[in-house]
Amino acid sequence: MSGSIYGKLFTISTFGESHGRALGTVIDGCPAGLELCEEDIQIELDKRRPGVGAAATKRNEADKVQILSGVFEGKTLGTPIALVVYNEDAHSSDYSALKDVYRPGHADYGFDAKFGMRDHRGGGRSSGRETLARVAAGAVAKKILKSLGIELTAYTLSIGPIRAESFDASVIYENPYRFADPVAAAKADSFVSALKADMDSAGGVIECRINGVPAGIGDPVFDKLDARLAGAMVSIGAVKGIEIGDGFAAAMSRGSENNDPFDLNDGKIVTTTNHAGGILGGMSTGCEIVFRVAVKPTPSIAKEQQTVTRNAESTSIQIKGRHDTVIVPRAVPVVEAMAAITIADALLCNMGSRIDRITDFYKR
Amino acid sequence: MSGSIYGKLFTISTFGESHGRALGTVIDGCPAGLELCEEDIQIELDKRRPGVGAAATKRNEADKVQILSGVFEGKTLGTPIALVVYNEDAHSSDYSALKDVYRPGHADYGFDAKFGMRDHRGGGRSSGRETLARVAAGAVAKKILKSLGIELTAYTLSIGPIRAESFDASVIYENPYRFADPVAAAKADSFVSALKADMDSAGGVIECRINGVPAGIGDPVFDKLDARLAGAMVSIGAVKGIEIGDGFAAAMSRGSENNDPFDLNDGKIVTTTNHAGGILGGMSTGCEIVFRVAVKPTPSIAKEQQTVTRNAESTSIQIKGRHDTVIVPRAVPVVEAMAAITIADALLCNMGSRIDRITDFYKR
Amino acid sequence: MSGSIYGKLFTISTFGESHGRALGTVIDGCPAGLELCEEDIQIELDKRRPGVGAAATKRNEADKVQILSGVFEGKTLGTPIALVVYNEDAHSSDYSALKDVYRPGHADYGFDAKFGMRDHRGGGRSSGRETLARVAAGAVAKKILKSLGIELTAYTLSIGPIRAESFDASVIYENPYRFADPVAAAKADSFVSALKADMDSAGGVIECRINGVPAGIGDPVFDKLDARLAGAMVSIGAVKGIEIGDGFAAAMSRGSENNDPFDLNDGKIVTTTNHAGGILGGMSTGCEIVFRVAVKPTPSIAKEQQTVTRNAESTSIQIKGRHDTVIVPRAVPVVEAMAAITIADALLCNMGSRIDRITDFYKR
Amino acid sequence: MSGSIYGKLFTISTFGESHGRALGTVIDGCPAGLELCEEDIQIELDKRRPGVGAAATKRNEADKVQILSGVFEGKTLGTPIALVVYNEDAHSSDYSALKDVYRPGHADYGFDAKFGMRDHRGGGRSSGRETLARVAAGAVAKKILKSLGIELTAYTLSIGPIRAESFDASVIYENPYRFADPVAAAKADSFVSALKADMDSAGGVIECRINGVPAGIGDPVFDKLDARLAGAMVSIGAVKGIEIGDGFAAAMSRGSENNDPFDLNDGKIVTTTNHAGGILGGMSTGCEIVFRVAVKPTPSIAKEQQTVTRNAESTSIQIKGRHDTVIVPRAVPVVEAMAAITIADALLCNMGSRIDRITDFYKR
Repeated sequence: MSGSIYGKLFTISTFGESHGRALGTVIDGCPAGLELCEEDIQIELDKRRPGVGAAATKRNEADKVQILSGVFEGKTLGTPIALVVYNEDAHSSDYSALKDVYRPGHADYGFDAKFGMRDHRGGGRSSGRETLARVAAGAVAKKILKSLGIELTAYTLSIGPIRAESFDASVIYENPYRFADPVAAAKADSFVSALKADMDSAGGVIECRINGVPAGIGDPVFDKLDARLAGAMVSIGAVKGIEIGDGFAAAMSRGSENNDPFDLNDGKIVTTTNHAGGILGGMSTGCEIVFRVAVKPTPSIAKEQQTVTRNAESTSIQIKGRHDTVIVPRAVPVVEAMAAITIADALLCNMGSRIDRITDFYKR
Repeated sequence: MSGSIYGKLFTISTFGESHGRALGTVIDGCPAGLELCEEDIQIELDKRRPGVGAAATKRNEADKVQILSGVFEGKTLGTPIALVVYNEDAHSSDYSALKDVYRPGHADYGFDAKFGMRDHRGGGRSSGRETLARVAAGAVAKKILKSLGIELTAYTLSIGPIRAESFDASVIYENPYRFADPVAAAKADSFVSALKADMDSAGGVIECRINGVPAGIGDPVFDKLDARLAGAMVSIGAVKGIEIGDGFAAAMSRGSENNDPFDLNDGKIVTTTNHAGGILGGMSTGCEIVFRVAVKPTPSIAKEQQTVTRNAESTSIQIKGRHDTVIVPRAVPVVEAMAAITIADALLCNMGSRIDRITDFYKR
Repeated sequence: MSGSIYGKLFTISTFGESHGRALGTVIDGCPAGLELCEEDIQIELDKRRPGVGAAATKRNEADKVQILSGVFEGKTLGTPIALVVYNEDAHSSDYSALKDVYRPGHADYGFDAKFGMRDHRGGGRSSGRETLARVAAGAVAKKILKSLGIELTAYTLSIGPIRAESFDASVIYENPYRFADPVAAAKADSFVSALKADMDSAGGVIECRINGVPAGIGDPVFDKLDARLAGAMVSIGAVKGIEIGDGFAAAMSRGSENNDPFDLNDGKIVTTTNHAGGILGGMSTGCEIVFRVAVKPTPSIAKEQQTVTRNAESTSIQIKGRHDTVIVPRAVPVVEAMAAITIADALLCNMGSRIDRITDFYKR
Repeated sequence: MSGSIYGKLFTISTFGESHGRALGTVIDGCPAGLELCEEDIQIELDKRRPGVGAAATKRNEADKVQILSGVFEGKTLGTPIALVVYNEDAHSSDYSALKDVYRPGHADYGFDAKFGMRDHRGGGRSSGRETLARVAAGAVAKKILKSLGIELTAYTLSIGPIRAESFDASVIYENPYRFADPVAAAKADSFVSALKADMDSAGGVIECRINGVPAGIGDPVFDKLDARLAGAMVSIGAVKGIEIGDGFAAAMSRGSENNDPFDLNDGKIVTTTNHAGGILGGMSTGCEIVFRVAVKPTPSIAKEQQTVTRNAESTSIQIKGRHDTVIVPRAVPVVEAMAAITIADALLCNMGSRIDRITDFYKR
């Protein structure tokens, strides 16, 4: 098992090393009849490309996606959709110095311990480029969700000490930090420039909001919707935590404060507050789903660090090559993608929950 | 799908409603030859029973576990191990008033939305009693881990504003709050007594430390060890967040601070700090695995709350019955159990990661 | 992995050794709202009990099933349904002589090779009693299918050289051989009596017909409906082959003979013949699904046989205890059960195959 | 779910339509450190290309495989291996006449019923070309098996009425029918030429033998090794039956004949006969594994056939395009591939079956 398969009915199987021939995914279980073209996926892929701010690396691949299967005359066939992006701009020689050295904060040592070997070029399978396959698959999941009236919005909540204080979704992709707050974005630019000069890096927090998920999606025990979102989010490289709704703050709260009262809105059941983040007992309440993920600072820094070699000798390194000072902005579309895949899968799994709806379904 | 199955090779399938006939689990994939008796499981089950402090409910079942299969002459057979606990002390009438009312902070509405019906007695499938099956299965996983030299310790880090300031594992099960700090435990007792008088409830944070996991366990992409732990933890009722290592604090840190330098200790590769919490790139580093989970305040409170009925009418409720003012202490052994199951499963999945080790294995 | 879990959305996890405390299953993913009581399951379990003919063993347990969870006020909750049957009439001492001897035709040696140990009493996990859990789960699946207008009928087609020459479903459970042909049943009785006197055993063929499955159920590649049926059938102990439709005879046929012409019947698409057995390209055609399974002769025979011990010494055995001369009749309801579980699961999996149907489903 | 994923730990996810852009597979869970190059896979792919006999179509693509990921410096990395074959020689226009007509014996109607649409060109996802991905993945599985001393040999046992009467493995790929008997191959050529002149087609039987599988592989209940082989085989298009060992003949046999006596050979436990086909109770016995699959006649025939259109109108068709008169020879390497994948997966799953072996494994 290399653990590169995700999802129960909408299942993605991803592949690719940073400096290998290609990266991509096979999506098994996408419903038939969905309109889909390469442009739908390209739009999402382009969102994870470096912006223009101080945070970005200089690797500038086109990352053009190809649909190899599963789409015919502009619509999904219901058969597996293979998506591939060929690598073009790989500077493998940048990495040869790292071949036998374990970079602090990276997976290098784990790979050798597990597999006895690794592709050291650009992080290999643990490169940020791995997320490209997630975003491609997420683009398809998002089209499913859109046809059901479900929308997702992820954005940067904080970078290091800089925290958003306003929310305007329209600016997220107009600043390289993916803040929904232009003031925070401006502050971040100064902060990140200083960090870069200091050969250091920073982390941050990403928030995601999902609207339109009907009540009752998710399962009561192990496959709680929030449990699946948590697994999905922490599976993104550099993510070290997730909280749903009030999260860790709820642990400081009282029941009388944290419970969301139920109320009626035009006859529809709603909650008047949303401390729960739209999920109770693992099932959606019909309210906005809200969660946040913690992203650690980029481990690749130019500053000198103490470490060891493969052969267990002490050494020090300064990591060169092209690295983001902050990877948070690049992770924003990945969070959105993984959330979309998770929700789409849960919606499919939910269809068989009631015998009356099943008999209706097959009666047609 | 009701989502009550967990694990890939060490797989548990749990069942049971709070006031139904029984709760339990079937464990598929437990290795043969492990010494196992009912007492091994009972010891763990007893850990989740109410303590003597102010936090506890008065429901006092014996919760005697029976092994129905999979064990022969004191050893596991390699075949499924069915564990069952019959319900004895169920006061279902306490709940009849709640039949048609959605309790704030509970899964009631989600159940009706998903399944069109629910067992309203004692929370049904979403009761805290559901965790009994997790703890029973966890007891078996722990025995596997023990034979591999792996130990887990979970404990209360905070309850409401009360936070542990020292660590002494020996006191965890000597105070009803499961603090590893007796001073914090004493403070908690006052705090919880006051809350109870106020008909309110509190949440808290649980920390778990795991020692002895070899390096390289877990997978690089979706089945990262921390991703699986995150999914497992958030699947526990009332858990609203998880963080690994420094978690959300890492998001505020710099790369030069957050990266753990590699070093040598008697020729063995170690890290000199452990901001990562023992997992890098989804694979264990061989260091202590550390994570924390946020537990929300008990949603069942005696204070009056606004809500609605099944039939979409506004109403108010005061929840009676036996409820813990703080469920954190009861969740401590559940965190430990879910971690044990997750680690045991990852260890089994890892065995096929290298062809040289596979050929060695089959050469015997 | 002990491989006792079956199904993707309608998932059963079975447990139990022949002479252990109990056998049973947990069903995860049964839709909510299905009427279900113990009697529904007991009726099916009683079908696998020994009949009155020459073929039967004398073990005569009541095999009373208990529903431990997942049903409330006469309806399924959508949560896991645990079914258990306690063992009562186990004569374990009958088997002590077999503790260290490998019975020819049995799994004994495989168990020791795989697990290093086994429960030798009554075949342990590989006993025919294991199928009790399948039949119990099948009873639930059948209720789902019934609400969708789907009916299954399995029956004995042949026992040794005795082959049915007529079909009358009403007589299947009126003769101990489960023939749908009373003449064949009578012949079988003489044949089996002679075999028994000869301390020998026989096998046979079971046929199963399924009506009412809509067209398009099953998947095009690995999860072909017939592939899943084949896996399910060969997973039944003693089954050594399966064929769908004309099966092995199709291998001798010509395309012009074997192809089933499509035609119209009241505007509905049908085939005028059914050599395919109701499945083409892995998906149902809407025609009757027909398949046959080959059951080997009961391996437990009283005749002396050469074999070896655990300690690799040559020896001979005569197997005493209570054994069916022919297990075919007992396997008939098991075939029906496994088919029902497989079809129910495929129907649930199929619900997400088209985006238009998904949007309709969620629009309500 | 489109059901294009197979395997538990060695998992393949295949994709591709006959006349789409490409076909291929992603293999997740291949152990690291296995020597692998494109030529290893190409050799196997070339085995399924049309031979020179009368049976073959004229489609003559190079079918050049590319490894896109998971291999570095000639060895597998333990990460997903993506294999792709681009389509080059697709005559889609040959199929436009079939767009709205359901070909008898084909999956066309099932696709429309399930997905509401299909790629009609060359059979789309149900084309024989789909098996290319299986053979590519099988090539990798075979390399794993080879390093464990396991060898597989599949070959044609019969085509229509022509049946092999001798066995010489060296001639299998020297005749276009994949007979291991050159006399049968010569007879088949005459038979097939006559069929072709008659615009008809034939089926046949394929046998597969597997040597070197250690005892105890496979699981006792649903994941019996033969059950998994059965599912794998019937998942191959056109396969309508499978039998293990004596199969359907065992159903006619007596216990005293069918039981394989255990004996000793140089201290090793063996059976003196092999009616069981190397599998008892779902677990390998260490003997040769033997099974046979029934392949139906090619459904595409030039002879006129009655059928209906998508719009439910009666019509007739004569299927033109390039079709094999007999697809049995092409299915031979596919049988071998699916068997290899199944055995490799079972070997990986088996590693965690005993606690003593697990502790040994991790003690190193």
